[in-house]
Amino acid sequence: MAATETLTAERILEATEEVLRRYGPAKATVVDVARVLGVSHGSVYRHFRTKAALREAVTERWLERTVVELRPYAEGPGPADERLTGWLTALFGLKRHKAGGDPELMATFQVLIGENSAVVDRHVDHLVGQIARIVEDGHREGVFAAPERDFATTARAVFDATDRFHDPAHAGDWSAPDIGDAFAAVVSLVQRALRP
Amino acid sequence: MAATETLTAERILEATEEVLRRYGPAKATVVDVARVLGVSHGSVYRHFRTKAALREAVTERWLERTVVELRPYAEGPGPADERLTGWLTALFGLKRHKAGGDPELMATFQVLIGENSAVVDRHVDHLVGQIARIVEDGHREGVFAAPERDFATTARAVFDATDRFHDPAHAGDWSAPDIGDAFAAVVSLVQRALRP
Repeated sequence: MAATETLTAERILEATEEVLRRYGPAKATVVDVARVLGVSHGSVYRHFRTKAALREAVTERWLERTVVELRPYAEGPGPADERLTGWLTALFGLKRHKAGGDPELMATFQVLIGENSAVVDRHVDHLVGQIARIVEDGHREGVFAAPERDFATTARAVFDATDRFHDPAHAGDWSAPDIGDAFAAVVSLVQRALRP
Repeated sequence: MAATETLTAERILEATEEVLRRYGPAKATVVDVARVLGVSHGSVYRHFRTKAALREAVTERWLERTVVELRPYAEGPGPADERLTGWLTALFGLKRHKAGGDPELMATFQVLIGENSAVVDRHVDHLVGQIARIVEDGHREGVFAAPERDFATTARAVFDATDRFHDPAHAGDWSAPDIGDAFAAVVSLVQRALRP
């Protein structure tokens, strides 16, 4: 990559992901990232003050992609109950695709995720916030009942109840032949719980 | 232990659990088990033909304890909705107690469970069968609606939806300060789903 291009945080993060994919999380260094970009490691440190900050940012960027891909379901249009099933189905699909499609990168990010629990907590908050928006819209549309407590608590319960279909701890189950039926049964349970 | 006592399968399994706890799953041998019992290893092999069969039986016995402890909720008496909350709460309590109370034995059994997936499948079937019985009783009592499909599918969905509160993969979350609230919210979601 030509050093004459402006060195943006985004370019550094792209290069970091490439380096992590190539060397794995244990071996990847800031010097490797600088080499890929054709810049000095000092230039990288001007954007990310520590290696830990760089790793945190690349983890956040990776997780954020999921939030962006789910946004159409979170924001509509369409009836809220269909958006909720769409959102849950899309999340499960994205996670399965990540786990099955590029297991090495997935393993790399599992290590990074373990290092950055605050980033993961924020990510879960974003996802739960998307569900809360759908639940609130559904209440206004009359397709969902008023929640027993607040929308956020209900949204978190929906997220937790579908955990088996998005938590990477369960990735080993996602190729089981009956996993689609199990997913459909839990989504149906959640939909019944929300009905007025 | 005196060799003059009758050598039953139950005594061998007790001794095996003791040996596993003491030496860990990698080092425990049938000879160790025989030594604890004061018998020859041939005597042990007359009850369990292979080391694998012995490990499978001890895993099954360990898991079966949970089924026995949940039986009062599965079989009643009491209204089915209360039995369901009681069953889920008791299961979560037993799992937390196992994970927190004796982490070494828990880690040992995690290894054995990984070796004996057929035993685990049967165990999950027993647990789901207990939920199915509660759901069916609740339908008869009128506290639960007719399931969208069969009782077994609904029961499995309830088991999967509460996964975060019984699957040892999540044991690390069980000491979080908000875990009780999260559990209560999911149980409440499940109860709403089953209501007529």
